[in-house]
Amino acid sequence: MMNDSIRSIATIIRELDGILIFPHINMDGDALGSCSALCLALRSLGKKAYVMIDQPVPKNLDFLECGCCTDDDSVLDEVNLSLMIDCSGMKRIKGREAAWNRGKLKGCIDHHQKGMTDIRYDFFRTEPMTAATGEIIYNLIKALDVEITLDIANCIFAAITTDTGNFQHSNTTKQSHDICGLFYKIEGFDSKKISALIYDRRSKEALRMESKVLGSLNFYGNGQIAVGVVSQALLEECGCTMDETEGLIQRIMSIDGIEIGVLFKQNPDCVRASIRAKNYANVESVARKFDGGGHVRASGCTFYGTLEEAEQDLVPELSKLLK
Amino acid sequence: MMNDSIRSIATIIRELDGILIFPHINMDGDALGSCSALCLALRSLGKKAYVMIDQPVPKNLDFLECGCCTDDDSVLDEVNLSLMIDCSGMKRIKGREAAWNRGKLKGCIDHHQKGMTDIRYDFFRTEPMTAATGEIIYNLIKALDVEITLDIANCIFAAITTDTGNFQHSNTTKQSHDICGLFYKIEGFDSKKISALIYDRRSKEALRMESKVLGSLNFYGNGQIAVGVVSQALLEECGCTMDETEGLIQRIMSIDGIEIGVLFKQNPDCVRASIRAKNYANVESVARKFDGGGHVRASGCTFYGTLEEAEQDLVPELSKLLK
Repeated sequence: MMNDSIRSIATIIRELDGILIFPHINMDGDALGSCSALCLALRSLGKKAYVMIDQPVPKNLDFLECGCCTDDDSVLDEVNLSLMIDCSGMKRIKGREAAWNRGKLKGCIDHHQKGMTDIRYDFFRTEPMTAATGEIIYNLIKALDVEITLDIANCIFAAITTDTGNFQHSNTTKQSHDICGLFYKIEGFDSKKISALIYDRRSKEALRMESKVLGSLNFYGNGQIAVGVVSQALLEECGCTMDETEGLIQRIMSIDGIEIGVLFKQNPDCVRASIRAKNYANVESVARKFDGGGHVRASGCTFYGTLEEAEQDLVPELSKLLK
Repeated sequence: MMNDSIRSIATIIRELDGILIFPHINMDGDALGSCSALCLALRSLGKKAYVMIDQPVPKNLDFLECGCCTDDDSVLDEVNLSLMIDCSGMKRIKGREAAWNRGKLKGCIDHHQKGMTDIRYDFFRTEPMTAATGEIIYNLIKALDVEITLDIANCIFAAITTDTGNFQHSNTTKQSHDICGLFYKIEGFDSKKISALIYDRRSKEALRMESKVLGSLNFYGNGQIAVGVVSQALLEECGCTMDETEGLIQRIMSIDGIEIGVLFKQNPDCVRASIRAKNYANVESVARKFDGGGHVRASGCTFYGTLEEAEQDLVPELSKLLK
């Protein structure tokens, strides 16, 4: 599949009305920020557009909703475009297939490695070297000649800052900084305010849960692999929900001598693993073995057995990556 | 005192040789990164220059040393300039007065509010609206026509990213992003590598100490003020040193509903308080009452009694700031 240009995608979108925008399941800052930014831009062009979700917006991202999100499949009489953002493939929009299929045209804008996809897109663009899909959306909004309002800036800033680990991860580029730098020229833009909304609304209970996880890490490979576990029992004990584990994997990665960090999150129906590497390990290669994926130093995959089984399956594969 | 221009300071420095550069006591990333960056730039112009310290470089900042630091007052036969960076006033370079007084000329480059100073500078520049002194040093190095090498970029990136809280604090500006964005054009620049050196070399002991502090916070003002305490006893119990408390105040600030966070650090001879505000409180005004200072949302001051007395003195003053 060829990568379409931003300009050609803008030309297509400019002619369309009735647009549904789809973030991936377990939406994060980049997914929702990108979707809402584009939705706001399309509306400012007088178009009818919505972000289609069927999961609640995570509490720390509630300000990215911007009146854009709906779970009503029939919110639009006519859907001329279904647009997948920050993901590709039906599996990543599970539960919203009916709404997706309403689109007469199908499009995709993403920054993940081009994997297998089961969808025949009318246009498709992925930029694996771009840190955040929010950057691509910024460029698209500029190509659509839409003014970057404060709300759009907030959404794009949230998208970029979360996906670059606050401009620290190796995916960060000059473009990430250039785009966010421009937002400071917008009246009322306050990175601290956005940052506090994303990161600084943790409950005391979540902090207690985090202390417990960090106090009981398992180490492997001469201390080069650290594994943390969030079980359903721990969540109950502390009175937390799983979306309050945001940022916990970064805490694990802050330990001296670690190359690979894993956080197992026990969901009712599966165990999700977040995997990070510090310097050299290609954890994406391992995540792919377990039908997952992501980025070279930040990936994830899902297991369907017990927590213990997931750990026994994953750790030996990760150990092979150690120098 | 007038603010001298970067260009006029560059003109003065270009004519001088034998330069001692002074970071403030309890050097942080901005102080040491700025000093070493300038020292490297001066050496590339063929000048003899050193960063004068009398405290060990914090472990997480060791890579900013760059062969620049010395505690030897007589390292230079002739000192034609003593230059204070990221601070002003003799109190901030306590213990290095003799070395400072060797300079025939005295200069200061800072980004803190212009306070009282007991020094008659030959040139002086402070930019309170600039997020990091590293940005001013970057502009000075450019004015000196020195190429930004990888080592200089690493120093400046460390200075800016630490002082802006990874581009999240409200002091961040377009310039902070613009300068760091340019570094990605330098062969070998890797923000992740620098970031991992600064933030991701914490000992397991430090993580345990942190858990204990966060598990025993005191709350005041209907939960709007959170106070953490690192006593000498706790450090001994966990086997840590005080410089391993870096980042702990940000953890306190991440709690929902907090406006002001305080971390008391019990040193052998005094109690240091780090004070942060989330949205509106001017904590600098309170820090000044206790002979401290800093920035509007990030300040510090020192107490000379017990931990309990420090808390009893400081908290009522901070409470007055709450809405």
